[in-house]
Amino acid sequence: MSSVPAVLDWSELDARAVDTARLLAADAVQKVGNGHPGTAMSLAPAAYLLYQKVMRHDPADPHWAGRDRFVLSCGHSSLTQYVQLYLAGYPMGLDDLKSLRTWGAQTPGHPEVHHTPGVEVTTGPLGQGIANAVGMAMAARRERGLYDPESQESPFDHRVYVIASDGDVQEGVSGEAASLAGHQQLGNLTVLYDDNKISIEDDTDVAFSEDVAARHEAYGWHVQTVDWTGGADGYAEDVQALWDAYAAAAAETHRPSLIVLRTIIAWPAPNAQNTGGSHGSALGDDEIAATKELLGFPADRSFVVEDDVIAHTRSARDRGAAAHAAWDEQFGAWRAASPEQAELYDRLTARRLPDGWTDALPTYEASEKGVATRVASGDVLSALAPVLPELWGGSADLAGSNNTTPKGQPSFLPPERSTGKFQGDWYGRVLHFGIREHAMGSILNGIALHGPTRPYGGTFLVFSDYMRPAVRLAALQQLPVTYVWTHDSIGLGEDGPTHQPVEHLASLRAIPGLDVVRPADANETVAAWQAVVEQTERPAALALSRQNLPVFPRGDADGETWGDASLTARGAYVLLDADDPDVVLVATGSEVQLAVEARGLLAAEGVSARVVSMPCREWFERQDAGYRDSVIPPQVRARVAVEAGVSLGWRDVVGDAGRIISLEHFGASADFARLYDEFGITASAVAAAAHDSI
Amino acid sequence: MSSVPAVLDWSELDARAVDTARLLAADAVQKVGNGHPGTAMSLAPAAYLLYQKVMRHDPADPHWAGRDRFVLSCGHSSLTQYVQLYLAGYPMGLDDLKSLRTWGAQTPGHPEVHHTPGVEVTTGPLGQGIANAVGMAMAARRERGLYDPESQESPFDHRVYVIASDGDVQEGVSGEAASLAGHQQLGNLTVLYDDNKISIEDDTDVAFSEDVAARHEAYGWHVQTVDWTGGADGYAEDVQALWDAYAAAAAETHRPSLIVLRTIIAWPAPNAQNTGGSHGSALGDDEIAATKELLGFPADRSFVVEDDVIAHTRSARDRGAAAHAAWDEQFGAWRAASPEQAELYDRLTARRLPDGWTDALPTYEASEKGVATRVASGDVLSALAPVLPELWGGSADLAGSNNTTPKGQPSFLPPERSTGKFQGDWYGRVLHFGIREHAMGSILNGIALHGPTRPYGGTFLVFSDYMRPAVRLAALQQLPVTYVWTHDSIGLGEDGPTHQPVEHLASLRAIPGLDVVRPADANETVAAWQAVVEQTERPAALALSRQNLPVFPRGDADGETWGDASLTARGAYVLLDADDPDVVLVATGSEVQLAVEARGLLAAEGVSARVVSMPCREWFERQDAGYRDSVIPPQVRARVAVEAGVSLGWRDVVGDAGRIISLEHFGASADFARLYDEFGITASAVAAAAHDSI
Repeated sequence: MSSVPAVLDWSELDARAVDTARLLAADAVQKVGNGHPGTAMSLAPAAYLLYQKVMRHDPADPHWAGRDRFVLSCGHSSLTQYVQLYLAGYPMGLDDLKSLRTWGAQTPGHPEVHHTPGVEVTTGPLGQGIANAVGMAMAARRERGLYDPESQESPFDHRVYVIASDGDVQEGVSGEAASLAGHQQLGNLTVLYDDNKISIEDDTDVAFSEDVAARHEAYGWHVQTVDWTGGADGYAEDVQALWDAYAAAAAETHRPSLIVLRTIIAWPAPNAQNTGGSHGSALGDDEIAATKELLGFPADRSFVVEDDVIAHTRSARDRGAAAHAAWDEQFGAWRAASPEQAELYDRLTARRLPDGWTDALPTYEASEKGVATRVASGDVLSALAPVLPELWGGSADLAGSNNTTPKGQPSFLPPERSTGKFQGDWYGRVLHFGIREHAMGSILNGIALHGPTRPYGGTFLVFSDYMRPAVRLAALQQLPVTYVWTHDSIGLGEDGPTHQPVEHLASLRAIPGLDVVRPADANETVAAWQAVVEQTERPAALALSRQNLPVFPRGDADGETWGDASLTARGAYVLLDADDPDVVLVATGSEVQLAVEARGLLAAEGVSARVVSMPCREWFERQDAGYRDSVIPPQVRARVAVEAGVSLGWRDVVGDAGRIISLEHFGASADFARLYDEFGITASAVAAAAHDSI
Repeated sequence: MSSVPAVLDWSELDARAVDTARLLAADAVQKVGNGHPGTAMSLAPAAYLLYQKVMRHDPADPHWAGRDRFVLSCGHSSLTQYVQLYLAGYPMGLDDLKSLRTWGAQTPGHPEVHHTPGVEVTTGPLGQGIANAVGMAMAARRERGLYDPESQESPFDHRVYVIASDGDVQEGVSGEAASLAGHQQLGNLTVLYDDNKISIEDDTDVAFSEDVAARHEAYGWHVQTVDWTGGADGYAEDVQALWDAYAAAAAETHRPSLIVLRTIIAWPAPNAQNTGGSHGSALGDDEIAATKELLGFPADRSFVVEDDVIAHTRSARDRGAAAHAAWDEQFGAWRAASPEQAELYDRLTARRLPDGWTDALPTYEASEKGVATRVASGDVLSALAPVLPELWGGSADLAGSNNTTPKGQPSFLPPERSTGKFQGDWYGRVLHFGIREHAMGSILNGIALHGPTRPYGGTFLVFSDYMRPAVRLAALQQLPVTYVWTHDSIGLGEDGPTHQPVEHLASLRAIPGLDVVRPADANETVAAWQAVVEQTERPAALALSRQNLPVFPRGDADGETWGDASLTARGAYVLLDADDPDVVLVATGSEVQLAVEARGLLAAEGVSARVVSMPCREWFERQDAGYRDSVIPPQVRARVAVEAGVSLGWRDVVGDAGRIISLEHFGASADFARLYDEFGITASAVAAAAHDSI
């Protein structure tokens, strides 16, 4: 475990650098005319300590595997991070700070991963960063377990640091994640909570009077408080006290650490300090000038960085290089001693799948009785577990329903947390999120961001709503997270409308960059998992049935030719064709069987219908026009789409002449067969719609 | 404040009734073959105490204004409530229990308001019920303030009781709401937390080891623990201890109360007790028979209710009638003494708006510089505040940005929580939710469920994602909640993609029963608010601009005839017409100005275009076909839709020949004008699309 050095070395130059950081933040916001200066000013000492004195990192190699991770949960205070990246010598110049929040800049309003070197995670929506960091801390432990479970010290030990704000700790998602972090004994996690008692509606006491420290103690955290407002002479930025707290947090190995740092926002701006205005608005030229004077900087100049200051802070590069070199040695020794794990390391780092991995995948014989697609998904996970150690995940307390537990695999849990049903292993792979869907989503993001593993998480499809902010961020950050969302329609039956997704497929398809996959049978489910695992830069959502679905024949069978399930990866394909079809029937998931049945009804009436299974519209849209037209011929205008959800979006597929069999209202509590019947989602409805459309 | 009687009267018949309740629950699940028996069995004493000994309610009048409210936050345990409704003599028969979870039954899988008399709220999605109850407790205080702020005791004092499960306290939304409840000193709220240490993944210790009691103490709650597992002879259901806790909670006037009740799930089933299986599956005939034997019931009979037991429990009707009569007297005295408030009471109870209320609404002169629609919305709220005391709400820490604070109105806050910016009043009307969007959504639902006031809540549109589970439940429950979602597009500018909604309009339109309203200018905003206030059975979402939007002329102006803003209520209307148009341009919100400008560009090229402003697709769909065809003539196939979001759903409007100017990817951090330009959402793009479409 990387640890904080024993003695704080703090000079006048350090203090000057901190003041420089404050003023750079104020100047940058003033230049663009909008942004969030206050926190970046008052937190400058805390962020400077992290980047210059506490964290192990190498500005020359932002992706160094041995680095500590940093998450700015209060993403609105992006300057807190940008300025430190600049001072420490990351690829970030003064010009970048000057172009804050402008088109194409390295310095967008909120930090964006894959965009700004040194930014680990896209933050801004509050609470997410803390939960992401919990995921990173879990990923770090899992990584250690995969590569180097036995040694006392390891190149794979590192810490995760978070800076968080009032908003972050008020959001429920951070509470969920903090509870789980305490449970998981994530000693490698340190959260600094900037308790400045100011948010956008000014004094937080208007809405927030809980005891945050006591709450985190109740979660099982190691909690320290550093109060900079309590000095005899008023506000005093006691960096030594904060340093000591960082050191104590790093020394704590089995509890996550919260450091409550009591600050005054926008310190030391004479008038803007301790105001809501300084949170989210430029301070104004006069106030900035006054602050500069106070700090002994020229009041009439902006973006001032003295040579000795930048020379001093850029020594972070030397320290980074030294730490990196030391790590390389440690890493080399590990490599030599662990050839098998090194091979795994190389494979995972390259995001390569092992040769022949698909051999492990199950296949299913045709069967009318069928298999629920959630069961097929569970089979896939069990089959892949021995082949793909990088694949891990679990459920938000619905493991048995979501079929997310691969057979025979230990849980990722402190062993003393083992229960009668689940064997815990510090480095296990079955995740138990508790009834915390939102934190699950954010933790999955954190795991994917940390790398190199591939996380998945399950709940009922209807509860994707609870996770939605995290799902959006997975899509925005292009993270290869997989959602196992079962009970994907009114097909879940008796639990009724609160548990039956109706609008969810449409609303998830609306998210740019998310693949929504709803396989029609067990073999499509296998093919879908294969396609999802082969993607490394997109999240994917599997929408899986509770109820059994027939397993379709494939190839020539029953006097018909059935499309191959491998075509699932193309997003849509001809499952059952007709010569010169009169109508094309398009369906997803459990409704494909209705299209197949309707085709039979229509055939008896002399109407020839093609059945298209369309498990993933996003994948289909990525095919070339030739393939797309071969599946849904432009000249066949008679089309019917059937899906047990709202019709929103299906007009694009069926066109003006088409018909849509859908559900435009909430469900009800009854057995699923009755619901399909009552709500008119039936083969005969599809056949009637086909007649309408022709 | 209603309070719990001083002495618990507990007889053998009470004990027998409790056992009857357990077995009815087990039998009902067994009959349908699925459901959740365990909690209903072990919580039967707690629920029975509430319905028979603690709560003030009248089974003959489930809507009695003087009743205590009951929320079953763990809705999956619906039998906990259904059985008590049956025993107490609500309109609920044994046959209803026998038809549990079947089509059309009074007893759906989860409790549904407006469906089962005595059910106050639809629950099931975990955590919501606790947060709804916080809203109810706030609504009760506001109601008291509206009708009867001065008296010591009032007919408008009542308590809100909640039964909650592990899942409820694990979900972040309940933590957010609990924090706010402590802050608001909601002494009228009692939450019973069934700490049975079992959830679907069996032993909760696999994911949950925090100290729930200490956490709630940190929120400022009054916390009591009653442990039924700690008896010398093993498990002992000490009803007196629980009763005492209820009484102590009722006596506590300035802190919400949590009672942690340690139980064994499915008690006393000999094998199923304390198992995850008993949470969500039928126990099986043998186990039920064994339980019946244990309790001295005939093992071979189901749904047994002895005559003396039902006679005993039905005395709840007499107690209810007596309490109701006493209340009527108290209410009559209040009525006589408070004629003005009584008039308000009658108006609000009838959901009637005062005569001439629309006179207060502002109107705006045409202006090119324009007004942000969020600002117009704020003007409406300030104008209506004196006229509609039932309208109240606030923001999740974005009041200044969402313009949700009506001028000169006090905050709903304990006075000692006043801040420099906001004056608190115990009965105030400006709500401060803190940075807790999800709890805000659920609290709004609770306020609307409680009645008779009309709540609204604001945040940025992008953070509607955080509230989505609550928004869905508002729609499902047909609650007149209004969302003030500002910063409704990339028009928010520099904060970047994490803050820019792109998919949200589409994904919200997917929710059945939610009206999504995106006004094009200040006058449309006023008309939208009017239409929303006039609706009493649907939630509505206002999507409002951060940036200024031109205020369009109305009627004859500039040589054109502009459609009247009052047509906003019809969902879409012709804003600017053309003789025999070649193309129809449809737009919403801030993009309507682009359609107007494009019309000018097209006119210069000899193309005549009609501009349709479509602020609310749901309202438009509710118009008759004649009106709809008059706005978008079927014979004009050339159409363009423009909206700064994903195109999903717009094909329905523009048809096969139409074109859609949309945004199919996330936004970026820059000023908004640059973004519109870079992303091609411009008047010239609309004009070019019109040419394409013709």
